Amino acid sequence: MFRFSSVLAALAMAALALTQQALAQEISGPLVIAREGSFFVGGRDVHSDTLSTVPAYAASGTVTVDQMYVRYQVPVDSGTHVPLTLIHGCCLTGKTWETTPDGRMGWDEFFVRKGHPTYVIDQAWRGRSAASPAAINSVRTGKTPVDQLPTVFSAAHEGAWAIFRFGPEYPKVFPGMQFPLEAQAEFWKQMVPDWLASLPTPNPTVPALSELAGRLDGTVLISHSQSGIYPFQTAVLSRHGIAGIVAIEPGACPAATDDMTPYAGLPILVLWGDYVDLSPRWAPRLKACREFVQAANAAGGKAELVMLADVGFRGNSHMLMQDRDSLQIADWLAGWIDRHVIR
Amino acid sequence: MFRFSSVLAALAMAALALTQQALAQEISGPLVIAREGSFFVGGRDVHSDTLSTVPAYAASGTVTVDQMYVRYQVPVDSGTHVPLTLIHGCCLTGKTWETTPDGRMGWDEFFVRKGHPTYVIDQAWRGRSAASPAAINSVRTGKTPVDQLPTVFSAAHEGAWAIFRFGPEYPKVFPGMQFPLEAQAEFWKQMVPDWLASLPTPNPTVPALSELAGRLDGTVLISHSQSGIYPFQTAVLSRHGIAGIVAIEPGACPAATDDMTPYAGLPILVLWGDYVDLSPRWAPRLKACREFVQAANAAGGKAELVMLADVGFRGNSHMLMQDRDSLQIADWLAGWIDRHVIR
Repeated sequence: MFRFSSVLAALAMAALALTQQALAQEISGPLVIAREGSFFVGGRDVHSDTLSTVPAYAASGTVTVDQMYVRYQVPVDSGTHVPLTLIHGCCLTGKTWETTPDGRMGWDEFFVRKGHPTYVIDQAWRGRSAASPAAINSVRTGKTPVDQLPTVFSAAHEGAWAIFRFGPEYPKVFPGMQFPLEAQAEFWKQMVPDWLASLPTPNPTVPALSELAGRLDGTVLISHSQSGIYPFQTAVLSRHGIAGIVAIEPGACPAATDDMTPYAGLPILVLWGDYVDLSPRWAPRLKACREFVQAANAAGGKAELVMLADVGFRGNSHMLMQDRDSLQIADWLAGWIDRHVIR
Repeated sequence: MFRFSSVLAALAMAALALTQQALAQEISGPLVIAREGSFFVGGRDVHSDTLSTVPAYAASGTVTVDQMYVRYQVPVDSGTHVPLTLIHGCCLTGKTWETTPDGRMGWDEFFVRKGHPTYVIDQAWRGRSAASPAAINSVRTGKTPVDQLPTVFSAAHEGAWAIFRFGPEYPKVFPGMQFPLEAQAEFWKQMVPDWLASLPTPNPTVPALSELAGRLDGTVLISHSQSGIYPFQTAVLSRHGIAGIVAIEPGACPAATDDMTPYAGLPILVLWGDYVDLSPRWAPRLKACREFVQAANAAGGKAELVMLADVGFRGNSHMLMQDRDSLQIADWLAGWIDRHVIR
C-alpha cells in the first residue's frame, strides 16, 4: 500500500511537472496584440457648487461620475475565443488581475495569450473611474452637517488578512498557503479606498457592465468577491451580450428564493479556493451559493459550483488569481470556459 | 507671388500627406510585446484608527499610501531605445496617455511601436495609487474638527475648458482647435478628484519617480501640466537614472534664480502648444519657463523650449497628447529624443 501510494504520488508529480512545462512554454515568447486601448462606459453629468475649496479651481460646475474605466487587449489569434471581462473586488482596482505581487504574469495577459480578448475594469468611483469630492467639500464649507460625509473605507492589512484567508487571523498563516506572502508589501499597495457604501444598489458598475456586454456582443463576466453579485444583477437588467458568468468567491450569490428566470440556460461557474469551511466569513456564503446553484439548475439553469481542491488545487486563498498556482488555475478556468461557453 | 505661395502650399500639403501615410503604416499591424505588466514604486505604512465606519471593516489598522502605480510595455525590438516615463497632470490619471477621447491610439502604445519601453504612472493618491480616507472618517466620527477635512478638488468641465485652452472661456472655441471636442464627453470621464493640496512638497510622486528612474537605469521623464515640476524635483533628489526631461506645458519650471547644478548637461525639452499668449493662466508660465531655459543653459545646461507652432503644428490645446495631430507630435517628439538623449 505504501509502495502503491508512492507510485501514485510520483505519477501525480510527473503529471504536474509536465503541465507546468507546457504552461511555461505557452506563456513565454512575444505577446502579439491586434489592438489594445482603454475607454469608459456609462457615466452621468452632475452639477455641484462644492467641487473645490482651492482658488485655482472653481467650486461650481459640472463633473462626470458613475463611468467605468475599461482597459483591453485583443490578441491577433482570437478566432472564436469569447471576450472575457475581469471585475475586481473590495478595496481593489483592475490591478488585481495584472502582474502578481511576486512579479508573475497576471490573468489579464494570460487570457490574452490563450486567445481571449480581455477587458479589465475599475469599478465606478474607484481607481481610474472618478469619485466626486462634492459631499466632502459641502461639509467642509459648512453647507451640510458632518453626518453627510460620504462613507469611504479602507481595509487595513490586519483585517484584510482573514478576509483574504491568508490565515485564520493576522498574522497566522494557513498551512500550505499558496498566496506569495513574502511579497505582501507589494500586495497591500494595491488596496484603495472604497466608496461602495455611498453608492446606490445596484452599483453604477452594473449598468456599465450591461452596456459593455452589449458592445462586446458576447462576454463572460468574471467577478471576484465584492463584485460577485454584479454579473447576476447585470443579467437581471438584460441578458444581451452575456455569454456566461464566472463568480470567483462571490461576496453574495443571488438568493435561492429569487426569480431564476434571468439565469436560465446561462453557463454559470461559482469558484472557490481552500480553507473556506474554516472561515466564519466565507463558509455561510459558500452555503448560500450552493443553494443558489441548486435553485438555478432546478429552474433550467446551467450552473456549477466548483471547489478548487476538488479539481486538484490546494492551499488557495481568496486572492487565488495571485496565488502561486494562479496560472494553472487560469488554465483550468480557460478550459472550463471553452467547454461550457458558446459565443 | 500668389502662384509661388500656391506651389509652396501644395508642396507642404504633399509632404504632410506623405508623413501621414508613413505614420499610418508605422502604427498599423500587430503590436509585438516582449514583456508587459504593472507594479508599484514607493509607499509607506500608516497606522490609523479611522479607516472605516462600516461594521464589515475594522476602523483600526495599517494601510499603505504614497506608492505610485506603474504600468509598462516593452517592445521586442527596443534595442537602444531609451525607456520613457509618462507622468499625467492635474485631475487626471495615466489614462491621459492611452486611447484618445475620439478613439485613436494613445502615446503609450505609439512610443512602444517606436521601440521605446514605455512606463505610464498614476500619481500618488490618484487613480490606482491609493489615497487614505482616514482624515475624512476622523471628522465623521467627531475625533477632529471639520476644518481638518482633506483638501480634495475636482476640476469642473466649465472651469477646465480655459485651463485646457479649448477656448478663451467655456464654451467658446479657439479657431483651428485640434482637440477633438466632438468627443469631449469621453474626455470629461477621464477626470478624477485631486488630493495634491493635501500632500507634502515635493509630492510623494517625486521620490517614487526617482526610485523608478534608478530601477530603469536611464529614462526620459515626460511630464504634463501639474506634474511639470516633478522631473526637475526628481533631478534635485538625484540624477541617477534620469536620461532626459520633457516638460509638456509645465505648470511650473524651476525658478531662473534656483541652483541650476542639478540640470547641468541634462537634455531638457519644454514643449508648448498654441494660443499660449492668449491665456492669462499660461502666458506667464511660458515666460517663466523661457527664463529657466536661459538660466539652465547659462550654467552648462542643454535645455530647449519649443513652441509647436514653430515646428509646424498649429491649433494645439493644453491636452496636445490627445489632439487630432497627437501622433504627428509624438513622432516629432520621438525624433527629438533620438537626437538629444543618449542612454
